[in-house]
Amino acid sequence: MHHLLLIAHGSRRAASNEAVIALAEAMQQSAGLPVRAAFLELAEPSISEGIEQCILAGARQLDILPYFLAPGRHVQEDIPNLVSQAMHSHPQVTWRLLPHLGAARDLAGFLLRHWQDTPP
Amino acid sequence: MHHLLLIAHGSRRAASNEAVIALAEAMQQSAGLPVRAAFLELAEPSISEGIEQCILAGARQLDILPYFLAPGRHVQEDIPNLVSQAMHSHPQVTWRLLPHLGAARDLAGFLLRHWQDTPP
Repeated sequence: MHHLLLIAHGSRRAASNEAVIALAEAMQQSAGLPVRAAFLELAEPSISEGIEQCILAGARQLDILPYFLAPGRHVQEDIPNLVSQAMHSHPQVTWRLLPHLGAARDLAGFLLRHWQDTPP
Repeated sequence: MHHLLLIAHGSRRAASNEAVIALAEAMQQSAGLPVRAAFLELAEPSISEGIEQCILAGARQLDILPYFLAPGRHVQEDIPNLVSQAMHSHPQVTWRLLPHLGAARDLAGFLLRHWQDTPP
């Protein structure tokens, strides 16, 4: 089955981590496919734990979506390295590392709709 | 005139800051209204400089959009405090502090479209 893992940085503030988990749940509701959240640091599940959870839940294709705005070290090195390790450990899974949120097509349009939709 | 200021954290990596400025330019192209970027730290213009630029360029209404995912200290304290100071310095301007990107309506839907639109 096709699964999505949303990877966030993780925060010392529980509310920030809970917002990411709620976002993954909202995505799962809309998509009708399993969506989980995992965190690079400071929160659980870790990325490795999140990947294991997806595979234990039956993922045959696992897409990884970095919930990051900036193309910094986390997006360019840390997350690809962790995903690469997981690919070697689980060769039976089809993997896809999506572009991070900050590189999503039409993010400008989404921000403009957010601007226009916000009540005065 | 109505202006939008997109506020990002700012990074030591020039590419991250340039991506934010390019995003503001893409928004301005689509919106047909002035959109600028400013940075909380590590990059220029600062938030205060960005606000001054908008006002010098004729902003009578200035909307502030925090380009942040997490509702942490920057979103909940630092940016509101800076905007509050600017409001007191420029009472002739109509101000609006929008919810940060991570709280935008239907962010889940946008992320799902990003997932579905990414080629295999």
